Amino acid sequence: MRLDLALSELAFLGNRLSTARAVCDQHSQSESHIRSRSPDAVAYPETTAEVAQIARICTRHGIPMTGWGAGTSLEGHALAAHGGLTLDFSRMNAVLAVYPEDMLAVVQPGITREALNADLRATGLFFPVDPGANASLGGMAMTRASGTTALRYGTMRHNVLGLEVVLANGQIIRTGSCAPKSSAGYDLTALLVGSEGTLGLVTELTLRLHGQPEAVSAAICAFPDIAGAVDCVTATIQMGLPLARIEFLDTEAVAACAAWSGQTLPPTPHLLVEFHGSPHGVAEQAERFGDIARTHGCRGFQWAKAQEDRARLWKMRHQAYPAILASRPGSTAIVTDVCVPISALAEAVEETRADIAGSPIPGPILGHVGDGNFHAILLVRPDDPAEAAAAKHLADRMADRALRLGGTITGEHGIGMGKLGHMPAEHGPAWAVMGAIKQALDPQGLLNPGKLVPQ
Amino acid sequence: MRLDLALSELAFLGNRLSTARAVCDQHSQSESHIRSRSPDAVAYPETTAEVAQIARICTRHGIPMTGWGAGTSLEGHALAAHGGLTLDFSRMNAVLAVYPEDMLAVVQPGITREALNADLRATGLFFPVDPGANASLGGMAMTRASGTTALRYGTMRHNVLGLEVVLANGQIIRTGSCAPKSSAGYDLTALLVGSEGTLGLVTELTLRLHGQPEAVSAAICAFPDIAGAVDCVTATIQMGLPLARIEFLDTEAVAACAAWSGQTLPPTPHLLVEFHGSPHGVAEQAERFGDIARTHGCRGFQWAKAQEDRARLWKMRHQAYPAILASRPGSTAIVTDVCVPISALAEAVEETRADIAGSPIPGPILGHVGDGNFHAILLVRPDDPAEAAAAKHLADRMADRALRLGGTITGEHGIGMGKLGHMPAEHGPAWAVMGAIKQALDPQGLLNPGKLVPQ
Repeated sequence: MRLDLALSELAFLGNRLSTARAVCDQHSQSESHIRSRSPDAVAYPETTAEVAQIARICTRHGIPMTGWGAGTSLEGHALAAHGGLTLDFSRMNAVLAVYPEDMLAVVQPGITREALNADLRATGLFFPVDPGANASLGGMAMTRASGTTALRYGTMRHNVLGLEVVLANGQIIRTGSCAPKSSAGYDLTALLVGSEGTLGLVTELTLRLHGQPEAVSAAICAFPDIAGAVDCVTATIQMGLPLARIEFLDTEAVAACAAWSGQTLPPTPHLLVEFHGSPHGVAEQAERFGDIARTHGCRGFQWAKAQEDRARLWKMRHQAYPAILASRPGSTAIVTDVCVPISALAEAVEETRADIAGSPIPGPILGHVGDGNFHAILLVRPDDPAEAAAAKHLADRMADRALRLGGTITGEHGIGMGKLGHMPAEHGPAWAVMGAIKQALDPQGLLNPGKLVPQ
Repeated sequence: MRLDLALSELAFLGNRLSTARAVCDQHSQSESHIRSRSPDAVAYPETTAEVAQIARICTRHGIPMTGWGAGTSLEGHALAAHGGLTLDFSRMNAVLAVYPEDMLAVVQPGITREALNADLRATGLFFPVDPGANASLGGMAMTRASGTTALRYGTMRHNVLGLEVVLANGQIIRTGSCAPKSSAGYDLTALLVGSEGTLGLVTELTLRLHGQPEAVSAAICAFPDIAGAVDCVTATIQMGLPLARIEFLDTEAVAACAAWSGQTLPPTPHLLVEFHGSPHGVAEQAERFGDIARTHGCRGFQWAKAQEDRARLWKMRHQAYPAILASRPGSTAIVTDVCVPISALAEAVEETRADIAGSPIPGPILGHVGDGNFHAILLVRPDDPAEAAAAKHLADRMADRALRLGGTITGEHGIGMGKLGHMPAEHGPAWAVMGAIKQALDPQGLLNPGKLVPQ
């Protein structure tokens, strides 16, 4: 790493290159519990050509390159584990084009999902992937994000149709097209989505948009136990009811959300559901779901047809994270996720619940259970190594349990630095295949080193 | 290539290894117009372990390995362009497991889609991807097949959840899991689906199943011109109507199908549509589609609610290929496909129609237009080089036109040998990235050489 030489060549960026301690330190902390050294410098590119020039300079001098979107990832993806240059994409945040007829938008990587949807409002279209945090689209693509609406609209895997990417050597490639599908060669778009910035730097995304649903209905219902709620989810999926969202909150999460929002909710597991469609369609689906829920012991089934009632419901869900943090004042959270086959969901959630109950720390469970995906928000006292170790142990056991049940160590948070140690157990020799692809595209290992692939 | 040494080591296969001329020649012709030399030998493995052993032997002796499913691909994918060994997967055709709760099936690559669906009949589930031909699931995965139902159920990209694959060196890897989604590392499943056997030999597939729809309705309607039919498709998609299928036939295709099936149909472009859902849902969707169709000039709108009427309708569509072949007795067909953004569909189809009309050969057009995907079935006299050249020229212009309109050179047929020449125009430097991945995973270039990647 010849940093001085690189910095002198990067001077073309003017005041969009910084080595100030405050700026570098700001890019060494994300919303996760994972800590890393600071980058040596931060660049704020404004064009693809600039990103390509930065990559050529960094490659020439052996400088690691780490992309930064909104800093909301949960496994340390955007941290400069090996130092070097962080490319902060906040100035590349434009909507470049919207094609309403094709239901596509072309955007730069730094735009956040809320800014994109604000921009789209007048078109009647929206971008549905919603991981909770107001993440950048580039970051969401790189972590293969999903969230509450993936059940109906898919994850980033389904909603990124094409990419423009700068490779380690500065070469610019484009993947995909504006056609809805293709069988023209390797699906490089799908390879890059979820690659966590280890194969290239995304400079442009072509995204699928969806029509705003004509009618929406939502409901909340309480179940006597985890099994009842989860079995209700399984039955609903198997009936083929086209759910837009189905979220699970365990008793601990419900208590925290109720306290935070000032609502009264029975202290038992709950499901929040939403249907999108035509007025007749959502009414029919709602009625069918009500029947299924009642046969699984649902009590206190409440429909939220009015927009303000729905907004209140989903605000409560979206504020679950601060609500849960507030449930143990002074704590910080280690948030972890796994994903299992639907048939194993009740077992996975119940075992996890029992495991946390037997540990010294609290950890409410919630998740996008229609996908078999759930989270534990493990609350630890900062600077208490014993609690951090307990949380790590619980998270490790969740990952092991997910694998034992035929699932995956992460449904939507990604690997980053936090879950590297679990990769051999999930992938066996396929992990080395990922390493071979990385080696082929980034032989010097400069793109986001320390993440995802064998080190 | 040290064939004799390899064959002596492959003798462990007993009579499941053949060098008989008839057997090799049988594996040198597919349903496509593309011809190739014969393989030097054909193996019929029965287990993953046998495939791995075959791969180790072939790699040790530099023998090309080409997978063979049902031989129905259209761009020469399964032809042994460089000779060597063809692995015929017809004996690996078992359904290994069905998990109804998770709506998954685990199958061997040689099973055909019709055999799989026959096996699933009692479960109430089905595998929806339907490319028309009774292809093998391994072949469908490798070409990223789609077909009439992709609009609602997705292509092979969406319906393959995991794979077991034997790499060139004989190593066995598994990709994906039984969880509905994952963000654990590179999406190797998505990289392998559509890789045309150039990165590994698929020995097992985990497939998503779907519930048999509770209610189905279908309709056929005639339009005065191509633009009316295609604009009706565009409007329907944009309204968000959940179409299960929407198929276009131009006047020439309609005439051929009517003659073949003995039905009376007006000699104009037609759409065939199908809705899947609840009884109320499909009725509502049908009514809405009827309104849209009428505003686009639809005449002779006919609903087919009864199962036998629907069967007759789709039988006509599925027999379009022999019907069109019969429309010019003695001809053979060069079938080509492209896919464009929905907004460019009318232009693409109309220009193609005019181009074919100005050529010396007939070529009905039909396709899965809800995806922007359409086919021309170019009818040529066998052994007439001028007609073959005219067909090639038309197909090349279709591919160029699709790229000019923001689309792709193939929506579902793949690259194989037939479309290699168009890859640089579609992918630019990204084609070399495909080559680098190929080189990393198959450094000797033994897996299906002559296909997809730069040669």
